[in-house]
Amino acid sequence: MTRFSRRTLLTGGVGLAGLGVGAAAVGVGQELSEPATAPSTLPFFGDHQSGIVTPMQAHANFIGLDLIDAADHTALQGMLRLWTQDAANLTQGEPGFSDTEPELAGAPARLSIAVGFGPGAFASQVLAAKKPAWCAPLPAFGIDRLQERWGQTDVVVAVACDDPMTLAHAVRMVVAPVRRRMRVRWMQQGFHHRRNLFGQVDGTVQPSDDRHDDLVWDDGAEQAWMADGTSLVLRRIAMNMDTWEALDRRGRELSVGRSLDTGAPLTGTTETDEAVFSATKGGIPVIPESAHIARAHQRSDREQFLRRPYSYDLAPPGVDGDTSDSGLIFAAYQRDPLAQYLPVQQRLADHDALNEWTTPIGSAVYAMLPGARPGSYLGAPLFE
Amino acid sequence: MTRFSRRTLLTGGVGLAGLGVGAAAVGVGQELSEPATAPSTLPFFGDHQSGIVTPMQAHANFIGLDLIDAADHTALQGMLRLWTQDAANLTQGEPGFSDTEPELAGAPARLSIAVGFGPGAFASQVLAAKKPAWCAPLPAFGIDRLQERWGQTDVVVAVACDDPMTLAHAVRMVVAPVRRRMRVRWMQQGFHHRRNLFGQVDGTVQPSDDRHDDLVWDDGAEQAWMADGTSLVLRRIAMNMDTWEALDRRGRELSVGRSLDTGAPLTGTTETDEAVFSATKGGIPVIPESAHIARAHQRSDREQFLRRPYSYDLAPPGVDGDTSDSGLIFAAYQRDPLAQYLPVQQRLADHDALNEWTTPIGSAVYAMLPGARPGSYLGAPLFE
Ligand code: HEM
Ligand code: HEM
Repeated sequence: MTRFSRRTLLTGGVGLAGLGVGAAAVGVGQELSEPATAPSTLPFFGDHQSGIVTPMQAHANFIGLDLIDAADHTALQGMLRLWTQDAANLTQGEPGFSDTEPELAGAPARLSIAVGFGPGAFASQVLAAKKPAWCAPLPAFGIDRLQERWGQTDVVVAVACDDPMTLAHAVRMVVAPVRRRMRVRWMQQGFHHRRNLFGQVDGTVQPSDDRHDDLVWDDGAEQAWMADGTSLVLRRIAMNMDTWEALDRRGRELSVGRSLDTGAPLTGTTETDEAVFSATKGGIPVIPESAHIARAHQRSDREQFLRRPYSYDLAPPGVDGDTSDSGLIFAAYQRDPLAQYLPVQQRLADHDALNEWTTPIGSAVYAMLPGARPGSYLGAPLFE
Repeated sequence: MTRFSRRTLLTGGVGLAGLGVGAAAVGVGQELSEPATAPSTLPFFGDHQSGIVTPMQAHANFIGLDLIDAADHTALQGMLRLWTQDAANLTQGEPGFSDTEPELAGAPARLSIAVGFGPGAFASQVLAAKKPAWCAPLPAFGIDRLQERWGQTDVVVAVACDDPMTLAHAVRMVVAPVRRRMRVRWMQQGFHHRRNLFGQVDGTVQPSDDRHDDLVWDDGAEQAWMADGTSLVLRRIAMNMDTWEALDRRGRELSVGRSLDTGAPLTGTTETDEAVFSATKGGIPVIPESAHIARAHQRSDREQFLRRPYSYDLAPPGVDGDTSDSGLIFAAYQRDPLAQYLPVQQRLADHDALNEWTTPIGSAVYAMLPGARPGSYLGAPLFE
């Protein structure tokens, strides 16, 4: 049932003036598949938050925040109002409300600012009954080496943009005004490219656009207020460059089940060829059963989600022998993480050739709010 | 004597095929002043190393390395040979010598890889007499709060690129093959934009291109092998966003002596107007004597250098109350740091309104090698 689709561009709310700029911006990563006519602004108001099914921007920063007083739901409401106001402006290239560097707001470069709630955000009496049942950390997996510093937070703000300075400024506008109410636990900064740091083409198999309504967006069946929202599973996965590079090319291709040059499945010739897991050569599966894609491939229609992996590559911590601090900020969006994401993750945790070189060090789950209606604010249905 | 010049593009060694890509790449920071026809590759071989007077790329990573055995000059020579070979390939879009992710090399995006020596690199008997007299840490300044972790190293490799993935891969190719010979002390990752994180237009006043031969490039008078090389002063300067934002707009403009919106001096109307430090209004200087540009402006023709500031904006260290870890990777290139850079730095250290919100936390000085001749390797003249 999986279809390979060129993601369509979101339209609406886009001034013509931005087109030239957006066209240039998209050209940077020469391998990005987005057409060169992407607009320079994404809509802020609408059914859904931008930055979820939107074609990926070049840079992202996921901000994990903890509420100082989780029982105070009016404070939370205040922050949502404030973020709405600022995000509505910043994403359209206008300064934020109390913006002290308004000059940094002029190049929106497809900026998106999306807000999500972890379980802790529902701690107040008013919100307790509004928490989706799935909004909780994932169960522990045998492969996990989770670090508290990359763990579950009360709130996440996912900021993404093609321009790193606009991004930095927007992050500042998210964090600075709420500092008396929230503490930043972590920031996860990454960049997007068609390939990840292992050199693999990444992000090929995705649910097709016409499945977003059913696989990504919540229908409000469990929690009415969540209609048009979604869930985010955010995993921080370290990639061991040293041991990966010690492996020969053939071994690297077998570990994933795809060729490194074209990204084609080992049973095909181009990236978009559908993998044939049943194919054998001399009685041996062409794509090993332990290969990452063989294990990750959906075994039922429900086992699909939207993957938006951002690479991180930070300065190594300076401990002898460390030559890198690299990996993926693995973001997966789906209506129901327990039904869609968990079985795949469990299968990979049980057995996946790639586990030899990758280690999950962070994990969190969030309820990404529905989009804000014009004149209203993010999360408004929660307080109605 | 200062002239405001649009920096000219380096040409040579550039295939036509790259032009389309380069044109797109440059468009990202909409405020970058480089023309949209920049080529996608920079030459590696030549009189000078690329990445010094070349128009600034969007991303940079300065890698500070220490030699494990500084007395072993042949090991150092071996590393220079190896880096030359890899950099000559990578900058032209070809994989490195022992490249395990050759697919990440295909989009050079104006990649440059430039190597410099700190004092420790001259520790071997063979090289001891080759050290330029100025190649030593700067004297301590009253404003400094230097951290050992950002201090002087034996070697620096300055890698810069318009594409963060190509950059990450090149950094990997610099670090991985020498790991038994050198230890990474730090990596300083930054991005370039016409404005810095304080929102100021930064990088306006620069020596004009026709002064590079005399102000930037060494003439070999002190050390013959240094001809066509230069010096790098690398300062890591923290910028306190919280206190800066508490200051009103007028105060912010007076602290630098330029307006925030256009970047014009307070005595002019456009960015390229020359500042008139003698102008007064009601007997009071229009540009305060304590303003950053009044203090930094050259008082003699020698007091000029090429500034290439990269902004950094990292996740705050998670200590209560910290909302940012932001600042400048301030890179200055000049023939003689003691004659050209030091008097300006001393003047700023003695008194500069901007010091209230900025703190130097790292400092190092390097002899940037001359360019490699085709068929030869970086630093060859050192061993002749
Ligand atoms: C560092 C960790 C990971 C790396 C390097 C990685 C890499 C890849 C690569 C190269 C592909 C093939 C191309 C593509 O279809 O995108 C792939 C496919 C896939 N990955 Fe991962 N992945 C990682 C973690 C995960 C995790 C944590 C999950 C979910 C639990 C996951 C789920 C999938 C799925 C569903 C596919 C498509 C399988 C198919 O139907 O062909 N991956 N991954
Ligand atoms: C975080 C630290 C710093 C910030 C935010 C900063 C910012 C600025 C800004 C906004 C300008 C005016 C525009 C321009 O001409 O580029 C400027 C000019 C200048 N800065 Fe800085 N600067 C910093 C540190 C330094 C340091 C350490 C030096 C050298 C020791 C320096 C030397 C200069 C010079 C020479 C000029 C040009 C002055 C002139 O008009 O002739 N700056 N700086």
